Amino acid sequence: MRIEVICTGDEVLTGKTVNTNFSYISQKLEDFGLSVRWETTVGDDRESLLLAFQLAGQRADAVIVNGGLGPTVDDLSQEIAAKAAGVDLVLSEEWLATMEAYFKRRSRVMPPNNKKQAMLPAGAEVIDNPVGTACGFALDIGKARFFFTPGVPRELRRMLEEQIIPRLLATNGKQTAIYLKRFHSYGIGESHADSLLAGVEAFAPNGSVKLGFRTHYPQLETKLTARGSDMDDIRRKLAPVEQEVRKRLGNFILAEDDRTLEGVVLAELAGRQATLTLVETFTSGQIAARIAHLPGAEKAVRRGIVSRDLGEVCAAVGLDGAAMAAGITRETAEAVARAARRRTGSTHALAVLIDLDEGADRIEFAGTICLAIATEHDVASRRSRIVGGRDWVRLGAVELSLDCLRRRLQGLPVNERIDFEKV
Amino acid sequence: MRIEVICTGDEVLTGKTVNTNFSYISQKLEDFGLSVRWETTVGDDRESLLLAFQLAGQRADAVIVNGGLGPTVDDLSQEIAAKAAGVDLVLSEEWLATMEAYFKRRSRVMPPNNKKQAMLPAGAEVIDNPVGTACGFALDIGKARFFFTPGVPRELRRMLEEQIIPRLLATNGKQTAIYLKRFHSYGIGESHADSLLAGVEAFAPNGSVKLGFRTHYPQLETKLTARGSDMDDIRRKLAPVEQEVRKRLGNFILAEDDRTLEGVVLAELAGRQATLTLVETFTSGQIAARIAHLPGAEKAVRRGIVSRDLGEVCAAVGLDGAAMAAGITRETAEAVARAARRRTGSTHALAVLIDLDEGADRIEFAGTICLAIATEHDVASRRSRIVGGRDWVRLGAVELSLDCLRRRLQGLPVNERIDFEKV
Repeated sequence: MRIEVICTGDEVLTGKTVNTNFSYISQKLEDFGLSVRWETTVGDDRESLLLAFQLAGQRADAVIVNGGLGPTVDDLSQEIAAKAAGVDLVLSEEWLATMEAYFKRRSRVMPPNNKKQAMLPAGAEVIDNPVGTACGFALDIGKARFFFTPGVPRELRRMLEEQIIPRLLATNGKQTAIYLKRFHSYGIGESHADSLLAGVEAFAPNGSVKLGFRTHYPQLETKLTARGSDMDDIRRKLAPVEQEVRKRLGNFILAEDDRTLEGVVLAELAGRQATLTLVETFTSGQIAARIAHLPGAEKAVRRGIVSRDLGEVCAAVGLDGAAMAAGITRETAEAVARAARRRTGSTHALAVLIDLDEGADRIEFAGTICLAIATEHDVASRRSRIVGGRDWVRLGAVELSLDCLRRRLQGLPVNERIDFEKV
Repeated sequence: MRIEVICTGDEVLTGKTVNTNFSYISQKLEDFGLSVRWETTVGDDRESLLLAFQLAGQRADAVIVNGGLGPTVDDLSQEIAAKAAGVDLVLSEEWLATMEAYFKRRSRVMPPNNKKQAMLPAGAEVIDNPVGTACGFALDIGKARFFFTPGVPRELRRMLEEQIIPRLLATNGKQTAIYLKRFHSYGIGESHADSLLAGVEAFAPNGSVKLGFRTHYPQLETKLTARGSDMDDIRRKLAPVEQEVRKRLGNFILAEDDRTLEGVVLAELAGRQATLTLVETFTSGQIAARIAHLPGAEKAVRRGIVSRDLGEVCAAVGLDGAAMAAGITRETAEAVARAARRRTGSTHALAVLIDLDEGADRIEFAGTICLAIATEHDVASRRSRIVGGRDWVRLGAVELSLDCLRRRLQGLPVNERIDFEKV
């Protein structure tokens, strides 16, 4: 099936808004084994919209149009869809009633210009929007089935996942169920993971599970797309592959599916009623900012301390500055973590000291990270050197620190070699 | 002049990479008074590329193609450009020599497959790439002039700004110079700014200065695009408009052009050899993370303290917990800021206490921010209520706090009403 996407709107065309709706649509379709072949962006302009609809209608089997369903005069999708399909715009009593109920639930009166949102091309199939007033609809133009979706990301997501993808899969003759299993890791690059996982697809029968990756430095997402007759069938096929991925990526898997690294760390802390103190230098509060705002963190994160100066770090945790004569080393980090824990009375303390190289901020710019995690009984520490410019060092240090803390809390080694460090 | 953009590459088409290159190109052209009329994204696929080039060549006067100039087999732009133009690919001795010199400067031998990057359509105009091995080029296809650019953002930027925009402006008959003046503000919404600035364009002759906005919550960017025969002429025309914008937006302007709020705050601190202590609660280290990693901050930012618990905040700054019986108020914030300054010996301390409402994280969710800035001699404080969900409250509190600090350091009132607060 040839699928195209048309994104509409001056905001996107002029670059004022980065087109994340498109990357979302395309990724989501890929997750279900569907592919976008062509994307077009046009503005709120009748001539361009009509031509875009006509061209896509000649080439594609299915077209997803995003945007232009709002109540204002520059929202033109329904009007041009009707024109391209050669039909009239007619009032959908069904959608008008839905909208009136929507406003009533919010104790508001529907403004008259919202009525425009219920004007649909004759013969269009209404696609429900449970979270907004823009009516989705489907319509044939040329040889393609067009699906019209709202520009508001939240509304688009619901409609795409709940309504459009099932229709596309049905049209595509794929009456099978599809499920996406995800593993998040830190410390393994995409090509390394690819070679580690060579052959895992063979653990499921007949190519029913497909392996893929998505990189967002510093994390890597490993994806298994599984197909089956229903969810039970999928679970059966997926289980041996999942197990193999867990075995091969091992300690590097930091979370699965919708969980996050910071969420896992927080859950580990909360689960044992532990409390955490953070000491940061060049990461500048970014480690705290990843975790301390989350619901539940008000209990688990006791204190964060930030300073770019080692002497000031010592003062903040009550260490004698003279003890720091060695500069930034693993031992110094251990001493700081121990002192921070004692000072605040938390069960755990993470100290992350960073020694930046001298010189200009280029791709060769590096930093040395010495981090330590102290508990009442022991202290674990690690030294790592990250290259790639100031921002890269900072991002890497944040992730490495949170991941070492996760490993410590889960009883895993904190010193496993990662692909992003220089030895 | 009708301009189109074609973005190429499977990474962009599958959504793995969000297409920020397109928004950058489009915005940059807008800044120079040029507009993109149509954008197409296709993958690394011969048939799609050829069709995209042909269609754009029929419609447009100028087409910017992004990506596909690399050394690997899936980089197809030169090959398909030649095919669409009906010419052969020929080796550019000029670009081959440029590449060899590029590798030599880096003490590396050029890999054989890089030679592919010097194969250009016959008759193409070479467009220099001072920061990479991908050769830009220009070529006529159909009735349009095509400009081929590399997908690496850094290389694209140099080529677009230094080489392609001047060519487009020349083709467009706009032999005039163009200059973009920018003002960054916090606390005024776009429509409010628009009404405050009504008529400012008239302070320049003959529509030579155009007003525009770009919103990225919580900040607003006000843009003046000025045209003239040369930079002197532009400066003359722009001066009265600039002055009027400064007068009308007044204290809300936090920085101009490439400067940032955190950069301005840091410069104010450094200029008086002042030092800063930060105390954060729900902002969770995000205020520190904006400023403490910047070059120079190692001297100016003395300490950051993060805790979600008011008692712990008091303990960290050496305040008697009993003094906090009132909960989160302006007075409490003032006491915390004073104590934090005394405790760390810094010249300035900013304390930001946030009282979150109870309940689910919805659009109606709000928080009350009490912030105070203490110096040796006095303390300024402010109370503000921000609605819009947990993330919105946190982002708003970070910006409000840094902006109040900027105002305090610049001798401006910290209590001016902003559009984003609920009274």
